[in-house]
Amino acid sequence: MKISIIGTGLIGGSMALKLKEKGIAHFIYGIDNDQQHISKALELKIIDAGADLEQGVKNADVVIIAIPVDAARKILPGVLDLISDHQTVMDAGSTKAGIVNAVKDHPKRSRFVAFHPMWGTENSGPQSAVAESFSGKAGVICNKEESAEDALQTVEKIVEALDMHMIYMNAQDHDIHTAYISHISHITSYALANTVLEKEREEETIFQLASSGFSSTVRLAKSHPEMWVPIFKQNKENVLDVLNEHISQLRKFKSALEKENYEYLEELITNANRIRGILR
Amino acid sequence: MKISIIGTGLIGGSMALKLKEKGIAHFIYGIDNDQQHISKALELKIIDAGADLEQGVKNADVVIIAIPVDAARKILPGVLDLISDHQTVMDAGSTKAGIVNAVKDHPKRSRFVAFHPMWGTENSGPQSAVAESFSGKAGVICNKEESAEDALQTVEKIVEALDMHMIYMNAQDHDIHTAYISHISHITSYALANTVLEKEREEETIFQLASSGFSSTVRLAKSHPEMWVPIFKQNKENVLDVLNEHISQLRKFKSALEKENYEYLEELITNANRIRGILR
Repeated sequence: MKISIIGTGLIGGSMALKLKEKGIAHFIYGIDNDQQHISKALELKIIDAGADLEQGVKNADVVIIAIPVDAARKILPGVLDLISDHQTVMDAGSTKAGIVNAVKDHPKRSRFVAFHPMWGTENSGPQSAVAESFSGKAGVICNKEESAEDALQTVEKIVEALDMHMIYMNAQDHDIHTAYISHISHITSYALANTVLEKEREEETIFQLASSGFSSTVRLAKSHPEMWVPIFKQNKENVLDVLNEHISQLRKFKSALEKENYEYLEELITNANRIRGILR
Repeated sequence: MKISIIGTGLIGGSMALKLKEKGIAHFIYGIDNDQQHISKALELKIIDAGADLEQGVKNADVVIIAIPVDAARKILPGVLDLISDHQTVMDAGSTKAGIVNAVKDHPKRSRFVAFHPMWGTENSGPQSAVAESFSGKAGVICNKEESAEDALQTVEKIVEALDMHMIYMNAQDHDIHTAYISHISHITSYALANTVLEKEREEETIFQLASSGFSSTVRLAKSHPEMWVPIFKQNKENVLDVLNEHISQLRKFKSALEKENYEYLEELITNANRIRGILR
């Protein structure tokens, strides 16, 4: 099939590489406002040709929208306006309620499948794309009952080709779960980086001492605001809810230390250790 | 040289493996209250023989103390009582001011070198030991002026054999820096695990959705209280100081979201991104 990818960055690029490798995509158009992304994606053989939005959308069997979630929500109705009943549109955004609501009453709603691949890194751009990125990770399809049967099957075929394990979920539930599992991790990582940058003026010392534990907890703090501000914005209520809980959990550690209540501190840590049984 | 390792767990075991591999250690005694650790360490050829404390200490050229920091502080004076002026004692604990103070006036103080290898994992026990663990990480030697020249040289030779890059630091400064760089990461990770466990009752969903970002931020939450309660206890003031700053950094994210001030949110994230220039 012919695939058009709107946004030839980390996610779009990685999907393109894998779908080509699996022989699912025979020709890939890249659509991107940033001409340097197009050039780089061509050079890396991630896409076969650049295209403008209208031409790219009209010529594809499947259109994959892989841009920040605010831009994706904005562009989707216009993309659906352009397509026929034989074409399928999917996104790859980290929030789902917003985009699903934006096209709720669109006459072509059933051609759209809301998708979220649970993978990402702190890097961006086509040069960061890796074909094997998605293997073994969760691929979440939301509100599948609002999509046409054949459009859903097309996307399922793509998710399988990405070697992801498929999960079906309601868009609202998805946004609640990802607030816990992905969005809050980014906020704590940003706040941790800001804490260290605030308190530790000797950057050379950070660099020299940084252990693997530190590196792994602040890794996410390298993630770009262009992607993450829109996610936090669209998932504001859920993120705030989890953030409030997280602050109150931290206050328990503070209180245990202040009161030198080390039995309580041990209890808090032992409770956290339960995560061992859930994440191998 | 003959080396005795008090505590044949993750750190002691990993050091033993590497020092044998490098040909620095010709014979290793393992000293451990837990007989199962001794059996396992023998089985894995981490140590050559088990020993009791007195016998092990007396027969070694170098004694490495690799047990939780409270136990290490408690045992060190008695170990120094047992040794001659040709023997060297080093520790491997994550806090340094406490242990250095505990032997400040000990007649054998100069035979002790305070050491902290900046490496660890969430796992424990001899079965988790890996020879290559320390390569490229920071090995911090504290208050070197309080150690005899030959004892310091012996430890430097060991740190080099571990392939670590050596850093010299004052014990007080060490404890401030590690509060920022290591201890706070563990608290945020524990609190994050507790947040998720509190809010996300559907454990199956955590397991299914968990992305690599989530796994890396909660990895440290698997770390055992036996090791970490004593560290937080010994470094209480510094950890509280950084924890207060961290909570106030998180409140900035909360306030930006509550007020829908997305310019401020972007500013907070952009500031955090500066960590990219410090940690590759």
